[in-house]
Amino acid sequence: MRQGQRRIPAAVVNGTGYGGVELLRFLAHHPFFELIEVTARSEAGKTVTSVFPSLGTMDLTFTAEVERSELVFVALPDQAATILVPELLADGRRVVDLSAGFRLHDPSLYPRWYGYEHPAAVLLEEAIYGLAEWARSQLPAARLVACPGCYPTAALLALAPALTAGLVLPDVIVDAKSGLSGAGRKLSIDMHYSEANEDTSAYGIGGHRHSPEIHQELAGRAPVEEPLRLTFTPHLVPMTRGILATCYATLAPGVSAETVNETYRQAYGDALFVRLCSSPPHTKWTLGSNLCFIYPVVEAESRRLIVVSALDNLIKGASGQAIQCANLMYGLAEDLGLPREGVYP
Amino acid sequence: MRQGQRRIPAAVVNGTGYGGVELLRFLAHHPFFELIEVTARSEAGKTVTSVFPSLGTMDLTFTAEVERSELVFVALPDQAATILVPELLADGRRVVDLSAGFRLHDPSLYPRWYGYEHPAAVLLEEAIYGLAEWARSQLPAARLVACPGCYPTAALLALAPALTAGLVLPDVIVDAKSGLSGAGRKLSIDMHYSEANEDTSAYGIGGHRHSPEIHQELAGRAPVEEPLRLTFTPHLVPMTRGILATCYATLAPGVSAETVNETYRQAYGDALFVRLCSSPPHTKWTLGSNLCFIYPVVEAESRRLIVVSALDNLIKGASGQAIQCANLMYGLAEDLGLPREGVYP
Amino acid sequence: MRQGQRRIPAAVVNGTGYGGVELLRFLAHHPFFELIEVTARSEAGKTVTSVFPSLGTMDLTFTAEVERSELVFVALPDQAATILVPELLADGRRVVDLSAGFRLHDPSLYPRWYGYEHPAAVLLEEAIYGLAEWARSQLPAARLVACPGCYPTAALLALAPALTAGLVLPDVIVDAKSGLSGAGRKLSIDMHYSEANEDTSAYGIGGHRHSPEIHQELAGRAPVEEPLRLTFTPHLVPMTRGILATCYATLAPGVSAETVNETYRQAYGDALFVRLCSSPPHTKWTLGSNLCFIYPVVEAESRRLIVVSALDNLIKGASGQAIQCANLMYGLAEDLGLPREGVYP
Amino acid sequence: MRQGQRRIPAAVVNGTGYGGVELLRFLAHHPFFELIEVTARSEAGKTVTSVFPSLGTMDLTFTAEVERSELVFVALPDQAATILVPELLADGRRVVDLSAGFRLHDPSLYPRWYGYEHPAAVLLEEAIYGLAEWARSQLPAARLVACPGCYPTAALLALAPALTAGLVLPDVIVDAKSGLSGAGRKLSIDMHYSEANEDTSAYGIGGHRHSPEIHQELAGRAPVEEPLRLTFTPHLVPMTRGILATCYATLAPGVSAETVNETYRQAYGDALFVRLCSSPPHTKWTLGSNLCFIYPVVEAESRRLIVVSALDNLIKGASGQAIQCANLMYGLAEDLGLPREGVYP
Repeated sequence: MRQGQRRIPAAVVNGTGYGGVELLRFLAHHPFFELIEVTARSEAGKTVTSVFPSLGTMDLTFTAEVERSELVFVALPDQAATILVPELLADGRRVVDLSAGFRLHDPSLYPRWYGYEHPAAVLLEEAIYGLAEWARSQLPAARLVACPGCYPTAALLALAPALTAGLVLPDVIVDAKSGLSGAGRKLSIDMHYSEANEDTSAYGIGGHRHSPEIHQELAGRAPVEEPLRLTFTPHLVPMTRGILATCYATLAPGVSAETVNETYRQAYGDALFVRLCSSPPHTKWTLGSNLCFIYPVVEAESRRLIVVSALDNLIKGASGQAIQCANLMYGLAEDLGLPREGVYP
Repeated sequence: MRQGQRRIPAAVVNGTGYGGVELLRFLAHHPFFELIEVTARSEAGKTVTSVFPSLGTMDLTFTAEVERSELVFVALPDQAATILVPELLADGRRVVDLSAGFRLHDPSLYPRWYGYEHPAAVLLEEAIYGLAEWARSQLPAARLVACPGCYPTAALLALAPALTAGLVLPDVIVDAKSGLSGAGRKLSIDMHYSEANEDTSAYGIGGHRHSPEIHQELAGRAPVEEPLRLTFTPHLVPMTRGILATCYATLAPGVSAETVNETYRQAYGDALFVRLCSSPPHTKWTLGSNLCFIYPVVEAESRRLIVVSALDNLIKGASGQAIQCANLMYGLAEDLGLPREGVYP
Repeated sequence: MRQGQRRIPAAVVNGTGYGGVELLRFLAHHPFFELIEVTARSEAGKTVTSVFPSLGTMDLTFTAEVERSELVFVALPDQAATILVPELLADGRRVVDLSAGFRLHDPSLYPRWYGYEHPAAVLLEEAIYGLAEWARSQLPAARLVACPGCYPTAALLALAPALTAGLVLPDVIVDAKSGLSGAGRKLSIDMHYSEANEDTSAYGIGGHRHSPEIHQELAGRAPVEEPLRLTFTPHLVPMTRGILATCYATLAPGVSAETVNETYRQAYGDALFVRLCSSPPHTKWTLGSNLCFIYPVVEAESRRLIVVSALDNLIKGASGQAIQCANLMYGLAEDLGLPREGVYP
Repeated sequence: MRQGQRRIPAAVVNGTGYGGVELLRFLAHHPFFELIEVTARSEAGKTVTSVFPSLGTMDLTFTAEVERSELVFVALPDQAATILVPELLADGRRVVDLSAGFRLHDPSLYPRWYGYEHPAAVLLEEAIYGLAEWARSQLPAARLVACPGCYPTAALLALAPALTAGLVLPDVIVDAKSGLSGAGRKLSIDMHYSEANEDTSAYGIGGHRHSPEIHQELAGRAPVEEPLRLTFTPHLVPMTRGILATCYATLAPGVSAETVNETYRQAYGDALFVRLCSSPPHTKWTLGSNLCFIYPVVEAESRRLIVVSALDNLIKGASGQAIQCANLMYGLAEDLGLPREGVYP
């Protein structure tokens, strides 16, 4: 921490979603970002604590627009973000976007997966894909960071080291289990308590919107020519928070368990928030923190590498990663204002 | 139902586990099996309803041993079952065993996976593996039925049709998610409410006891010479009941979605308890019933077949399947005394 | 069961709510009522199993109106029920109404508590309040039965014996805890999984709609002149089903624990579905059954009677009670087609 | 914060219970207490993070005994605490005890409620009952603080203002609902996931150990001569954390809703962690924070005061309150190192 530095005025756009509320909680105590504005469409004019009593004594009122902040965290739905973000940039602000609006480099994927033409396709080239562990060197110069989705964060942290090092064939399956807060506060019968409680189901088989994002980030990594073959199956499990991703790939010939372990140690040995573990991780270990646990294991008989990752979808999968990126954008310690211990049990 | 037929006197051994209690609930109203005895080690002498108030008005008292029954449902832990079952058979009784004690044909698998030499290995040849949908023809003559585990039931019903018909390569991944009742009433920190609630985790990676059972039943099926390559990863999700198995395999060349659908329709079109569905199934659909839902889907881009199955681990995965087998042993309608509607929500 | 009796054609109106679905499940196997019609507004034309896969193999299609049934179970919201029920009666059908539309005898309570003038106030005198245990003698002649709400059922079964016998002063507190299915399938932020999970709260303090119903049924009972003083506080607890009501009253002078126990034994000794217990009951004991457990206990030091009751809000608190009443309307055994064992665990 | 002050070396005794782990999480970042020791019986020698991965990067190893700390947080079971605490005091340390071992002033209550003679009864006079909001003035001089239980904290914060001000008669009912972490990590069938999930029940009716503690703290308050008549009924609801206490008392003659509100505003207007609310509070608002929400409401018709309180049983009901007390013991800001925002959702 550099003494005497002015605090950066910061805003949260759409502070009423689950990701937005977590941003407020962390930013309220951030030593270098000063949370001065939070916007909300329907709740403008209300105090933050009247809408979210859990925020205790936070002294802020929802407004309609960002006016004074240098750094803006955008927690809008993706299409709304594609419209607002260019304006914020044009005003000279730096933007950390939590939506999918700027994650994909190829504009043609937006009509296909999201159903609309991207209104600011030129920014797709500029936006830094903010998986903090991989983007460290690019973040200090970034104007626009596109934070990865919760599922991609879990999948990429689990699989990227093995693919990059050529330990596995570029043919992977990601079977992910998510708590329900990942779907946000929008009402739907699938999120109705009596329907979702005591239930587990798969959804979006063969075509979840997070697939192209995972594909984009994994496709270039493997040192072989073959195109990546990816299957991603998300599931809903009856809990509020947490993602567990169980990832499967076939080992390349001759790769040993020792090589796997060494590769992951090199990838994450210095990471503040990614922790290798020696038994299968529990999502409960991550509740309320920015931690991601990774457990790579070689199944000798099938010659498969199985990598299990666990994280809190609203933190390392959203708000925590956003702040981690913002810290790096400003040359700060990566973990400033972020919890490194989970709330247990 | 044959008029005038005497009711078969039936017993449940170890009626104090979760599977045992469900057996009691169903057998209490079975029109052809007359539940006359239920044993329990520590609770002998107590009435069933004093131990399990949910059983309402059931008029039975736990005893130490089976004495008068012709048909015996054994709900003991596997090693205890391997000792008791030969005695029951020697007394001339027919046995439906819910444990793993007689599921594996190869005796050498017991020391390796269960940690003991099988004391009645000769019975392993005789025991019918009681996946009712596949064992129908063998059950009428059976003395000893070894009911499959809850995970194998979900995996086998999902994958067997595709493997048997050669629609997929013999290289499969089963990623299964289970509620916690599958682990029984035995106390452990992993089943402690505050640990298991709001948590998802994998366990037994690369070596769960149900693997050899799934392997045994799938290995012979494929019409190709290659040995089966199987990865089975069980997970615990925070709910009491239900198993969801998401199964992955690569399609054989030239196999279309239509072929897949037709194959599954032929396999289960007449099944009373296995239902194909056109959207991903929910475990909630199965709560309290003997139903298993199956959803086969072709992922065109990756050329994979994904099959999702859902069932109630304590019913189709245990007690319900046991009664279904017993019905078939006595030439009765398969669904006698078994619920075909789930308790929703 | 009387041999040769024709089965009574029966209908469920609005079979798409949680209470309605449970009616379908029970009526599908009822030996004397033949479920021939089920209506639904938005789902008319669809098969029952396409909307509710849990109903397995039920062979019915939602229709818009009741046409052929003699007995009609109405599972509409209350205001809609007040309009439809008079028409059904005018057509000569017998009606079991699960809504609050005909529960209150005093028409002036409807504008106050439900916000509308009752369109068929004359029927309020005729309607039998269908708490089956108390209404047995009136049900055989009934054209219209108004089934009690889930909270009132729990409160009345707990408190009525003590008040009627003058064991307590007419000054009672009912602190009730309910699972979320009691609020139905209608979406609201309070029922959104991530909001309701891991949360407990009170609501409707000092003015829940079920208060006047409880008041009406308890007010006349006490042998003293004093008016009843009632406080009823409902709570939501994070589970799908179940109500636990903890009821408090001050013992009348000289009343002993023995007198209390004897009074409750006399009240419920013969009841098929109400069971006294000697330790605090669990809602889990009741899941899926029509049972209600009652635990009366004298707290010597405070001279209070505490009575705890537990039931499944969708069964004894709704659909099960409705069928129990219908059985009595037709002179059948009270428990015909109704489960007396719960689904445990 | 006083510049240049040395940090106080602090220890946690029995850091492996749920309360202990939360102490570790908070103390790891406390600016004035330096966590240097943590003991555990069975886990001595292991690193904290190997036992509790959620603690991320905490660099501590469990030891057998406290050796160097000035301030000791004791999170032992009560009887063990009564033996250790006198030794710690004799060594000149200051002690914050989270157990019930020093909460009751009257030694004769220990044999009756806890089953043993208190081995250090003389300390019962000295120990400060650490409900921080009431004990502020006594804490700076305290050697030994006995932190209240989670239930008493919820009950006392709710009822004490009304009793002290004579707003209600000294005749109160506390109906409390608790998540399961309150029972700790000790295994029992009641805490077994499949038993506790989807279940609500009362327990300890007429004789829970927290009753005498609530009685002791409320008994002296009312300005009338009548002895306090207290009924306390704890319940378990299926969630990990949170306590909701619904408290009932009869208003004294002439007391208005305005008087009630004004009394509570005066009692808690300046409190950092106690917040009055204008709608019934949710336990979810408190998860992970040291907040307690209080909602007093007058039910006009019954002339009752109903006060609902909500808190996180492991924080304001245990570890958070302990640190709040310790802050006050050392003249620090009350909220140092304590979260004032909850983890939502």
